[in-house]
Amino acid sequence: MAEKGVKLFGLWASPFSLRVEWALKLKEVDYEFMDEDLQNKSQELLHYNPITKKIPVLVHNGKPLAESTVIVEYVDEAWPNGYRIMPQDPFERAQARFWARFAEDKCVPAVFNVSINSGEELKKAIKEAQEVLKTLEKALEGKKFFGGETIGYLDIVAGWMPCWLRMIEEIAEITVVDAETLPLMNAWFDNFLEVEVVKRSLPPKDKLYAFNRARREQFLSGQ
Amino acid sequence: MAEKGVKLFGLWASPFSLRVEWALKLKEVDYEFMDEDLQNKSQELLHYNPITKKIPVLVHNGKPLAESTVIVEYVDEAWPNGYRIMPQDPFERAQARFWARFAEDKCVPAVFNVSINSGEELKKAIKEAQEVLKTLEKALEGKKFFGGETIGYLDIVAGWMPCWLRMIEEIAEITVVDAETLPLMNAWFDNFLEVEVVKRSLPPKDKLYAFNRARREQFLSGQ
Repeated sequence: MAEKGVKLFGLWASPFSLRVEWALKLKEVDYEFMDEDLQNKSQELLHYNPITKKIPVLVHNGKPLAESTVIVEYVDEAWPNGYRIMPQDPFERAQARFWARFAEDKCVPAVFNVSINSGEELKKAIKEAQEVLKTLEKALEGKKFFGGETIGYLDIVAGWMPCWLRMIEEIAEITVVDAETLPLMNAWFDNFLEVEVVKRSLPPKDKLYAFNRARREQFLSGQ
Repeated sequence: MAEKGVKLFGLWASPFSLRVEWALKLKEVDYEFMDEDLQNKSQELLHYNPITKKIPVLVHNGKPLAESTVIVEYVDEAWPNGYRIMPQDPFERAQARFWARFAEDKCVPAVFNVSINSGEELKKAIKEAQEVLKTLEKALEGKKFFGGETIGYLDIVAGWMPCWLRMIEEIAEITVVDAETLPLMNAWFDNFLEVEVVKRSLPPKDKLYAFNRARREQFLSGQ
């Protein structure tokens, strides 16, 4: 049963609500998941997040919080025992926040561009995505995960990429990340997808691929 | 004398490096300020921040950190005694981070648009800036500062606006924030500019106004 008062408004196919699900599962916090229809958002979601109206929104004891990266830090602080999401050292914590910002500001738009383009534009988008991922790779040097031996904040923030980019590669029949061009990133993709909490929280592959295949076709036909 | 090993690479006229200066001053940490020429960045800056190459960069005991909002949180955590920058309650801390993100993503571009436009575009930019500030005002309800009775994280992140927007208003001969349209924001502008640490760290008014007047003219002539 869900812990009294923990509700997550999300979307089954959203990498951003998945971040919060990973954090809650790592902390072993039970929660009620409210799957939103983004074309027809619930009154409850609009009530809890009138500012951006976006998912995910975590409601804890009646108090709502938005923005996935903010929620992940909150989950770590509101349930301080058990699994540690943020690094304990202030300098390492700041570095994780710096790279999380980089991943949000640079990697999200770069990978999105890969997913919605074809032809020459796609080639350009792949190159740009590889460049930002090459930079992000620096944060993996000498480590299995961004968090070290186990996944942490930056793994959770960047963790949609192993799932989504592998899917985009298959749908668009391209390669963005492989052992040759991005060896550390490629190894992290594999390692991340083997993490138990990640494996058991990913949406069913067929359903997710169909959803994203349709989304890509919609973008391509709109061009 | 500067505390051993605390160096800030910034720009005297940058609201972003000012954030870090406010945080360090509130914590009473002495530091060495390295004023950068952004057209000709020092080798030291490029060495310490090869990723974004931007100021501000804080170097503490030889270890560099970039991104002003990340550095401000770090300063609070690395010098945990004395002045408290982040709220102590996890929920309030998360809310401060949420609004800081909002201020970065919405207010920075909106106010920038005001500073570089004229005519009809300027009118549109003023309206848009007032809208995002109206939203941000919600975080001020019932409080003197975003942080409550004293300035905190969100005040530091948004604190460039009282200084810069008042200056832009004067230079462009416009009004964006007044007691009628944005009463809470207007009061906060006045309160923030009266904070001792803020008063004694703002650049000389004449020099700052001349710098920004020239910058505005440069943008307007380039249109």
